[in-house]
Amino acid sequence: MTHTGKQQEWRRLIDATELTRFTTEVLSAAGARHTDAAVTAEVLVAADLGGVESHGVARLRRYAEGLRNGDINRFGVPETVTDKGSVCVVDAHNALGQPALCTAVDLAIDRAGKFGTSVVTVRRSNHMGIAGWFAERGARAGMFTMVSTNAVPQVAPMGTNEPMFGTNPFCYAVPTSEGTLCFDGASSTVSRGKLEQLDRLDKPMRPGWALGPDGRTALGAAETVTGLINRKGYALLPLGGGDQDHGGHKGSALGLFAELLCGPLAGARWSRHTYQGGEAGLGHFVFCLNLDALGDQGVIRASVEQLAREVRDSTPVDPLTPVRIPGDRRRLVTERRLADGVPVLESVVADLDDIARFVGIEPVSTLTYDT
Amino acid sequence: MTHTGKQQEWRRLIDATELTRFTTEVLSAAGARHTDAAVTAEVLVAADLGGVESHGVARLRRYAEGLRNGDINRFGVPETVTDKGSVCVVDAHNALGQPALCTAVDLAIDRAGKFGTSVVTVRRSNHMGIAGWFAERGARAGMFTMVSTNAVPQVAPMGTNEPMFGTNPFCYAVPTSEGTLCFDGASSTVSRGKLEQLDRLDKPMRPGWALGPDGRTALGAAETVTGLINRKGYALLPLGGGDQDHGGHKGSALGLFAELLCGPLAGARWSRHTYQGGEAGLGHFVFCLNLDALGDQGVIRASVEQLAREVRDSTPVDPLTPVRIPGDRRRLVTERRLADGVPVLESVVADLDDIARFVGIEPVSTLTYDT
Repeated sequence: MTHTGKQQEWRRLIDATELTRFTTEVLSAAGARHTDAAVTAEVLVAADLGGVESHGVARLRRYAEGLRNGDINRFGVPETVTDKGSVCVVDAHNALGQPALCTAVDLAIDRAGKFGTSVVTVRRSNHMGIAGWFAERGARAGMFTMVSTNAVPQVAPMGTNEPMFGTNPFCYAVPTSEGTLCFDGASSTVSRGKLEQLDRLDKPMRPGWALGPDGRTALGAAETVTGLINRKGYALLPLGGGDQDHGGHKGSALGLFAELLCGPLAGARWSRHTYQGGEAGLGHFVFCLNLDALGDQGVIRASVEQLAREVRDSTPVDPLTPVRIPGDRRRLVTERRLADGVPVLESVVADLDDIARFVGIEPVSTLTYDT
Repeated sequence: MTHTGKQQEWRRLIDATELTRFTTEVLSAAGARHTDAAVTAEVLVAADLGGVESHGVARLRRYAEGLRNGDINRFGVPETVTDKGSVCVVDAHNALGQPALCTAVDLAIDRAGKFGTSVVTVRRSNHMGIAGWFAERGARAGMFTMVSTNAVPQVAPMGTNEPMFGTNPFCYAVPTSEGTLCFDGASSTVSRGKLEQLDRLDKPMRPGWALGPDGRTALGAAETVTGLINRKGYALLPLGGGDQDHGGHKGSALGLFAELLCGPLAGARWSRHTYQGGEAGLGHFVFCLNLDALGDQGVIRASVEQLAREVRDSTPVDPLTPVRIPGDRRRLVTERRLADGVPVLESVVADLDDIARFVGIEPVSTLTYDT
């Protein structure tokens, strides 16, 4: 795909309800059960609403094609294969990742309600969108919640240029007296989705984000994205980059944290063993801690809110840029997009039209061009 | 304190057993119960053995003086104030941090043994040394273990130059078929202890590690250390530095993670509220996940070891520098220092001699000069 400078900037607005309806219908038409299609659509559109387009409907083709060609099992139902009370293991049976992880989160909430804390792992799963959607579900139920997943290996830990880890998110959410506070970020400095966006928008990469086949920093977004997809010697760098002086060993340890919990501990595949023989075999991890078990939930939520407020109120380096806490920007973007519509790149809209034809449904209705 | 270039390089070797004995005796003479002194000494010397001198006996003065002047309560015994089975809360009663956190880890191991997973938080505590010592204790008991703490605020989250978070470690350990795998790192790019070391060794700082009072990167280790101690407008930067392009928002979220769990959730103080009115009021957090609850512990440990081996065996960027996993360097350094003795800077040895006089015991025996 090539773009001219002009084309790249065009986006169409799509009403969020329409985008969710359309995404659900695509997944249903591709073979998913309606409830599975609905939760998967909700998670994908939540990414677009929050400004994380890299994890939104731009990924819909993979889901629809995977369901159609059998890489994703459209008949699989998540099954609890180990139940030790506060610790459970779920087998996703190679079905869609979102319904499997949603089942795991709901189970973790239930068990932390009974025992105070809980862990639920998922094996034999697929891509599950943004971890934050699931962590916030736990937080809304009164739980400090951590969610992680592994993914196709794209990140080279410090010292190698071989991709060994997925962009494995570090993600947590906690209830506050005003709602929830949620952080969700890849353990790489940037995600491949971010580079795809830069490529589409013709914006430059920064040094220290990725390595090329020569083991040096890669600077071309298009080549890097292609190299990552085709496994041609490219790798993303962990948070902190490729050297110890900037903490690359720490970012590597963050990636390993998710790989351990979601691979060996979950009884799932890890690293280069994922996506082999027509099955992703990904693992997910959920940890819930019931605030009620620690003390008075109302007092704790108020303290969390106070800490958040103190950080927001600290003196900004740039007087015009207030200090943010995790989720602040996403919340504002979501509110605006719920009201005005979700801006979707012209090329993604064209892809959605193509997917609609592929599964045999009407195209998505768009509102207008974004200005 | 000033140093000449020559002095800075001199170190004396101290036998590890002698260093532990001496440290225990100092703490006992300063008023700690013998068992509390012994565990505190073990954690401090473990830092020196592992090459984390910033968290070792160089910190002993603060402990001895704190016990003597009452900032640390030498009569306090850690007390479990909330017991919900898999979730407990411990009150350290402002006594030494190490015995309190050790009590919490042992309680967490016991409860994860019964329930599969557990969380124990600690409030009203003090500095507790290296988190890794505690996480490895959990891993040796067959538990995936996370340990964190908050600390005096020295790190400015992205967007401000006000120190709002401690150097709050992100730390986990997991059992493997060969032993344990443990990561323990500050959520700042570098710790203040690291800058103190650079200052002593007259080595340069790197841009992006700290901010000065003007909101720009600080480059002088001595001024930065003094500025941090005296709260004179200096701040360390989070992992990823001060800007979003390098992931400063992610490092900030790591610092906030520990501050949330160890402050509001533990019912402890946080951020600027720590170290007020003669009491640190720090909080700690322990999470244990019993591998037996997830499946066959032997199989899981072997998978963890396999993942670790695959990372170590990945192609190094520099053919002469093998790829490491967390703990590899520390394990090698510890083995050598256990055999040959712990190299301690001349200035730190002089400080230990001074502390010995202060508490009224014989000075530590040194072996020889390190070459």
